[in-house]
Amino acid sequence: MKRKSYADMNCAVARTLDIVGDPWTLLVVRDMLWGYHRFGEIQERLGIARNTLADRLLVLVENGLVHRETYQDNPPRFEYHLTTSGRALAPVIFTLMQWGDEWSGIEVPPVHLVEAKTGRTLSPILVDEQTGTPLQDLTIRAIHVDDPRTDSK
Amino acid sequence: MKRKSYADMNCAVARTLDIVGDPWTLLVVRDMLWGYHRFGEIQERLGIARNTLADRLLVLVENGLVHRETYQDNPPRFEYHLTTSGRALAPVIFTLMQWGDEWSGIEVPPVHLVEAKTGRTLSPILVDEQTGTPLQDLTIRAIHVDDPRTDSK
Repeated sequence: MKRKSYADMNCAVARTLDIVGDPWTLLVVRDMLWGYHRFGEIQERLGIARNTLADRLLVLVENGLVHRETYQDNPPRFEYHLTTSGRALAPVIFTLMQWGDEWSGIEVPPVHLVEAKTGRTLSPILVDEQTGTPLQDLTIRAIHVDDPRTDSK
Repeated sequence: MKRKSYADMNCAVARTLDIVGDPWTLLVVRDMLWGYHRFGEIQERLGIARNTLADRLLVLVENGLVHRETYQDNPPRFEYHLTTSGRALAPVIFTLMQWGDEWSGIEVPPVHLVEAKTGRTLSPILVDEQTGTPLQDLTIRAIHVDDPRTDSK
């Protein structure tokens, strides 16, 4: 059976993973979200080879998730910042983090999220926007537009 | 510089990606969440090689995210179902799906989520559990337990 490219699948999950499915790529996004923007500091935090990091940054820039900003002219030095679409991955990072805090065998969650203004600790939870009901309390079906079969979770 | 294993990093995101960071693995979880539980149907949906799927299922079973249920004794046939920790990946799948719907170049979102009981379409959004404030409306800092440096997003 011929392997499909993830991008060819008519599925938003698959297409997203086609862009950010490499673990390093999401860790680079995480670092930028945490406020690290320079090649050297991201490289040091991840313990990643220079060419691997350069490659993942290129993928992120080419897909419009990251833009490069000059912070020094001579010699030229750059910072890498998330664009709107890159920043829109924050919920993916937060939900991965929550799963890891609970299920990956971590003893003490190493990072917690706080509201900058008040310092209050935040507990992200996915709810239905209209009613505010936590999705975990609902029985959810996935309706496929092209497929009469309705799946349930 | 020596590459760290993702699992060695003291980061819940990295540890989660160490388990589910392979794109196929998350797509297998997605299929089970959508109600597909048999080897053959998952293989057909993903267009994945049998040995690749067998390998990913083994990883999921060994990490406790999936359990195997016998649905036929002679010859033995199995279904694969998410455990509690596997099902806890639903928010990751939903947030990946939302990002893809908005940013991956999909024209019409191919799947939408509805509440089973009412058929009402759901719009998942990540909020702070205590206040109900959408996280996208807040400035968030990541506080590292082991690291005095405080990062902001």
